[in-house]
Amino acid sequence: MDFSFSEKVINLQKRLTAFMEEYIYPNEKTFEEQLNDQETRWSIPPILEELKQKAKKEGLWNLFLPDSEYGAGLTNLEYAPLCEIMGRSMIAPEIFNCNAPDTGNMEVLVRYGSEQQKEKWLKPLLNGDIRSCFSMTEPDVASSDATNISASIVRDGDEYVINGLKWWSSGAGDPRCKFAIVMGKSNPDAPKHEQQSMIIVPLDTKGVEIKRMLPVFGYDHAPHGHAEILFHDVRVPAENIIWEEGKGFAIAQGRLGPGRIHHCMRIIGAAERALDEMCKRVQEREAFGESLSKKGVIQDWIAQSRIEIEQARLLTLKAAYMMDTVGNKAAKKEIAMIKVIAPNMALKVIDRAIQAFGAKGVSNDTTLAAHWANIRTLRLADGPDEVHKQQIAKLELREHSPERERFQWQQ
Amino acid sequence: MDFSFSEKVINLQKRLTAFMEEYIYPNEKTFEEQLNDQETRWSIPPILEELKQKAKKEGLWNLFLPDSEYGAGLTNLEYAPLCEIMGRSMIAPEIFNCNAPDTGNMEVLVRYGSEQQKEKWLKPLLNGDIRSCFSMTEPDVASSDATNISASIVRDGDEYVINGLKWWSSGAGDPRCKFAIVMGKSNPDAPKHEQQSMIIVPLDTKGVEIKRMLPVFGYDHAPHGHAEILFHDVRVPAENIIWEEGKGFAIAQGRLGPGRIHHCMRIIGAAERALDEMCKRVQEREAFGESLSKKGVIQDWIAQSRIEIEQARLLTLKAAYMMDTVGNKAAKKEIAMIKVIAPNMALKVIDRAIQAFGAKGVSNDTTLAAHWANIRTLRLADGPDEVHKQQIAKLELREHSPERERFQWQQ
Amino acid sequence: MDFSFSEKVINLQKRLTAFMEEYIYPNEKTFEEQLNDQETRWSIPPILEELKQKAKKEGLWNLFLPDSEYGAGLTNLEYAPLCEIMGRSMIAPEIFNCNAPDTGNMEVLVRYGSEQQKEKWLKPLLNGDIRSCFSMTEPDVASSDATNISASIVRDGDEYVINGLKWWSSGAGDPRCKFAIVMGKSNPDAPKHEQQSMIIVPLDTKGVEIKRMLPVFGYDHAPHGHAEILFHDVRVPAENIIWEEGKGFAIAQGRLGPGRIHHCMRIIGAAERALDEMCKRVQEREAFGESLSKKGVIQDWIAQSRIEIEQARLLTLKAAYMMDTVGNKAAKKEIAMIKVIAPNMALKVIDRAIQAFGAKGVSNDTTLAAHWANIRTLRLADGPDEVHKQQIAKLELREHSPERERFQWQQ
Amino acid sequence: MDFSFSEKVINLQKRLTAFMEEYIYPNEKTFEEQLNDQETRWSIPPILEELKQKAKKEGLWNLFLPDSEYGAGLTNLEYAPLCEIMGRSMIAPEIFNCNAPDTGNMEVLVRYGSEQQKEKWLKPLLNGDIRSCFSMTEPDVASSDATNISASIVRDGDEYVINGLKWWSSGAGDPRCKFAIVMGKSNPDAPKHEQQSMIIVPLDTKGVEIKRMLPVFGYDHAPHGHAEILFHDVRVPAENIIWEEGKGFAIAQGRLGPGRIHHCMRIIGAAERALDEMCKRVQEREAFGESLSKKGVIQDWIAQSRIEIEQARLLTLKAAYMMDTVGNKAAKKEIAMIKVIAPNMALKVIDRAIQAFGAKGVSNDTTLAAHWANIRTLRLADGPDEVHKQQIAKLELREHSPERERFQWQQ
Repeated sequence: MDFSFSEKVINLQKRLTAFMEEYIYPNEKTFEEQLNDQETRWSIPPILEELKQKAKKEGLWNLFLPDSEYGAGLTNLEYAPLCEIMGRSMIAPEIFNCNAPDTGNMEVLVRYGSEQQKEKWLKPLLNGDIRSCFSMTEPDVASSDATNISASIVRDGDEYVINGLKWWSSGAGDPRCKFAIVMGKSNPDAPKHEQQSMIIVPLDTKGVEIKRMLPVFGYDHAPHGHAEILFHDVRVPAENIIWEEGKGFAIAQGRLGPGRIHHCMRIIGAAERALDEMCKRVQEREAFGESLSKKGVIQDWIAQSRIEIEQARLLTLKAAYMMDTVGNKAAKKEIAMIKVIAPNMALKVIDRAIQAFGAKGVSNDTTLAAHWANIRTLRLADGPDEVHKQQIAKLELREHSPERERFQWQQ
Repeated sequence: MDFSFSEKVINLQKRLTAFMEEYIYPNEKTFEEQLNDQETRWSIPPILEELKQKAKKEGLWNLFLPDSEYGAGLTNLEYAPLCEIMGRSMIAPEIFNCNAPDTGNMEVLVRYGSEQQKEKWLKPLLNGDIRSCFSMTEPDVASSDATNISASIVRDGDEYVINGLKWWSSGAGDPRCKFAIVMGKSNPDAPKHEQQSMIIVPLDTKGVEIKRMLPVFGYDHAPHGHAEILFHDVRVPAENIIWEEGKGFAIAQGRLGPGRIHHCMRIIGAAERALDEMCKRVQEREAFGESLSKKGVIQDWIAQSRIEIEQARLLTLKAAYMMDTVGNKAAKKEIAMIKVIAPNMALKVIDRAIQAFGAKGVSNDTTLAAHWANIRTLRLADGPDEVHKQQIAKLELREHSPERERFQWQQ
Repeated sequence: MDFSFSEKVINLQKRLTAFMEEYIYPNEKTFEEQLNDQETRWSIPPILEELKQKAKKEGLWNLFLPDSEYGAGLTNLEYAPLCEIMGRSMIAPEIFNCNAPDTGNMEVLVRYGSEQQKEKWLKPLLNGDIRSCFSMTEPDVASSDATNISASIVRDGDEYVINGLKWWSSGAGDPRCKFAIVMGKSNPDAPKHEQQSMIIVPLDTKGVEIKRMLPVFGYDHAPHGHAEILFHDVRVPAENIIWEEGKGFAIAQGRLGPGRIHHCMRIIGAAERALDEMCKRVQEREAFGESLSKKGVIQDWIAQSRIEIEQARLLTLKAAYMMDTVGNKAAKKEIAMIKVIAPNMALKVIDRAIQAFGAKGVSNDTTLAAHWANIRTLRLADGPDEVHKQQIAKLELREHSPERERFQWQQ
Repeated sequence: MDFSFSEKVINLQKRLTAFMEEYIYPNEKTFEEQLNDQETRWSIPPILEELKQKAKKEGLWNLFLPDSEYGAGLTNLEYAPLCEIMGRSMIAPEIFNCNAPDTGNMEVLVRYGSEQQKEKWLKPLLNGDIRSCFSMTEPDVASSDATNISASIVRDGDEYVINGLKWWSSGAGDPRCKFAIVMGKSNPDAPKHEQQSMIIVPLDTKGVEIKRMLPVFGYDHAPHGHAEILFHDVRVPAENIIWEEGKGFAIAQGRLGPGRIHHCMRIIGAAERALDEMCKRVQEREAFGESLSKKGVIQDWIAQSRIEIEQARLLTLKAAYMMDTVGNKAAKKEIAMIKVIAPNMALKVIDRAIQAFGAKGVSNDTTLAAHWANIRTLRLADGPDEVHKQQIAKLELREHSPERERFQWQQ
């Protein structure tokens, strides 16, 4: 297990960090102000496109994409420390064209898309000209069990007809969002994991109706946002099916591994920033005749946070390393482990930072509250903690079955 | 220690519960819709005043006020179960005219206000005609140590001149909010706890400027809101001083005891509602072929939540009982204890409920996320956990000093 | 709910506390020394019988027994604060003849025993002349599910024949231990909860073999101890059956309620003592130029411990109150709640005290380590936490079923 | 950061694992039985020496020693996975001559010992012929602050005279234990960290008196044991001073780094074994009609344990890697981090396993309770958690001082 970073990566870290400090952090407030000054928060603040152009020009673009034809061609292990840096700011990932769910959608199209789909949808995404969303979760069923998904995708001549109510289609609030990848049931009589398909649905198709945008703890996350979308007799050309009918689960599996680890990397960056800001804050404040940084309880928070972050980062690097070397499937226990631990770790770290900041911490004068709320969703998105833990336990139990040999050190 | 409820209280519980079910819960959405449909979220949704009139007519009004001339004359122990019921909905307390910070301000005026102050400010508050705010916390110092407060209140002839920057003046967003009680330094050379005064400042006084409203985890809490207020050479008549110069700390002490326990009671109600909704939800959902209510982990959350709520409620009742029987000062350890435990308990209970609800839980389709964010502020407001714990420890250490006799059972 | 203590109880508290300070605490080391100086640790240190006589003479005897013919006739609520005091020392309960499992066995005999059984077994127990054990748990099955119990009790003429392997028969190491109450399957074809019986087995009966004594975290708990006992074709007169065949579960239910709450009361006493000793210790030690009592983290432990103890005590009092007023069955949720929370609370409190004491805390120079180990068993004995939590959850879910009315405040 | 294991290490892992399975696990009970069958538990069970000879013959000997002249010459990173394997059994480390405190003492002698000291004390230790102890901690002061240490070492002609009371001198119960390395104050007027010296004291010197052996949660840890030793006017030749006068702290620093990481490695092995045994146990037991391995709560424990172990192991490997590459001093934050997290992690994992085993888990029928008690001491030994956390916080605060540049990714 070799976590050393190549010169290439170290160079990218430096450039990314410099970009963050020069362009991202100072413009977080600008972004928010422009949003508020617009007629509606659901249009694009100019600073966003401006910074995107800068990032693209500097070659800090599409770093997420392991495919070297279309993207940077970095391994997961190489991307990890870069993605972490981006995760320090909620506005950063999009500026580097590394924002979910576009990243996942781009990977799906690179891997499973037809040439025509790549031309029409992948290229403008890679170019940052359009955006996309992913419509999987449904309000009426427990989506933690994906076999519950009930939207229908029915072949009718040269078209597919889509019906269903989806929510938490993130990014659909963005006026540049041009299409959704929709998961639904196409083959109800097939074996359980071959009943679902994924299909590309342009958002301007007749029958697609954004019912409302869902807030997260009071945040609208504009202009990105989380939409509830009604698909009512929506017709798209049959060629919009991705890969082929019945491959929904297979694609989801391929999509979710990298998607999850990207979330974890970003989360670690957010935690790291919270610790950074907590450390600075407590050195600048006094109470009861003493710097807050001298208080035993606050020192305990700092130490505990450093330990937790460090451990979560190492486990994330291990998962990345395994994905690169033995593949996503063999790494599924490690992926599940970081999917559980990273958000739980960061929520604790950020919560401590909020407490250290006092009332300022719950407002928007720091990024703490916003990061907290965002990361809280990641104990649910892509499967709740409990489902991942159950999977970890099952894998673990299998390795320690009474019949099996004694545990062997795993390298 | 007798926690039995009198017939009067049981009767009020029933009437309050009935009112909640008939008028409050069904109108939580109405309230939010009216807010959004108005030109600005900072004006009053009609449903609010409508329900206030109903509550007043039913005698469910000013129950918080122990003074029987001005209010219901209930003891803390009697009010506890009633306040808890109100706490189940974020819109309820105001409808019963039991909303912070007005309750605290009313108590201050009843206890320490001049006849003129009572006539001018207390009566319309009691009547629900106006609202008020409390300006104590400042952005530039750690207000957890109240001696840090730096706003100045300087006598100049028949007037006082107030200068300072305050924030988290809750309720100041409300167009009906007519005055602030401002805490500031009037006697910088007096002994440490006699340097501060409290003074009534009408919000339409020249020099009072609301700089901005502060969000809480993305929530604006409109039309109530939390204001940052600049007091710049603000002049008010000398008669606006409460009690007399140098009594700021004394008043704060008197104000905070009941204020804190009211928060705790409401918090318990919010936790109780979260558990209620979690229990219902998990009986209505299935995943992996089984009702969520059969999952061991979810049963564990339910049991743990019930235990935690029950314990926090009993401790709150004990604190109330002691305040009633031996006084706020003798009850200060118990008050500090519930101030710490109630919000921490509720945050855990609500977080579990959010997790059980899945993505719905972080949106506004339930009250969970809003309650969580609101209660998160109560680990900071009126003193952060750490300050209260330090006080508890000091009292405890004193009781177990090596010189002192062995601990005696406390009844 | 009235937790006030009567004059009688307050008087008993004072006398018990005085007795503890004069006779128990100073003799804890004497007890241990006498044990070690004897030829075997499995005989009775003289100090024990000496103090028993003193306690008996002072009327601090059999306080546990609600029956006023045979015992003190105190309610559970009255006994709670007394039992708590006894729980402060591991040698105390026996000295007051209030030690498990004898207390439970005496209650069983008072309630369900025949006149002959009372004469032969109850009286000497009440008198402190003999001791007894309770043989329920078996090594080969998960006894958390009592229907797993597999020992057999078979009628053969005027006798019953008992076969089975039991362990954790506490008290069987004591040379004064004269009989076991054995639970076993007598009616395998009856309905599930009528298959078991309880029967009195004198330990000197042929076929009763104590295989070994089981340690608890290295403690032998001599001379009391925890035995593994083989019952091989053991024959006892038919009159030894308690109540009648098939009543094993019914008796267990009646036995366990009070047994559990007694454990909880004692546990609270142990936690209280740990906090007491921690507070004293940290005021006597310095590190890094400051009293340990000034360290923020230690103050946090003290505050947290006080909060947790206080809450657990109140919940225990509530359970006791309910057992007294509405009966053990109606109080089953509350009993389950304290059965879970009391040991978990105390383990945390004691662990903090150990940490504050440093290495001394893990030795036998304080009572901390011994209390910790003993209480750790109480997360398992009488049902593991998980079984109790499951029961709490089920009761809770029933109260919040979607069909049922909204939660009503419980008095 | 490269955690890959060389062929040499993988080969040693295999051989160690095979040895554990063939000789260690099956003889854990034999060891205990022989101890009990001896006249006293404080003499050496024959199985111990027997297995030592086997291990030595197989070349599984002195693997801990980085010095390749005297030992195996492995790096910390190479030794980590081997030490972990040994940590799975409490009897294993000594069998491989890798037991604390001898390992630390041997390292001290290799690094700082004179040729004569090496000849006389190091060689027989390396050979496994004698054993040694380390006398630093004192009962009367908080040794967490090492400047508190008060034993005196006074030069008198060609001798040093030692006076002081030490405790927790582990290993001193062993009849083969021939000397102690004693830390004491030799130069009370020197700068704070140059006042202490370390000196070799043969245990048969006049004035050395073992007052008693201290238990750990009821375990005597015989024949090793933890002694309280009185040094009363003990005279040893001046040549017994290690390095030179005033170097006590410098030696302690050099000694503690590796000592701490060895403890952590062993702890991880103990946690791994607990998880292994928990997984097997729950697949063999049923309750309420279902395998324990299907219970959601137990699955949660397993998953949580796997995550925690994995994270702690990776952090330990990182600390080892840093010690090897940048040195113990530069790795001090990482060493402190694992010193805190490893025992806390293992205590949680083992406690869950105990709970899953039920009553068996607190007895000695598994190794769980013994491992738990042993590891509990490691939250205190070599500095309590709180001191390490404070150090981590200080280092962290320095890196995030408001003046300093923003945090840089650490490789």
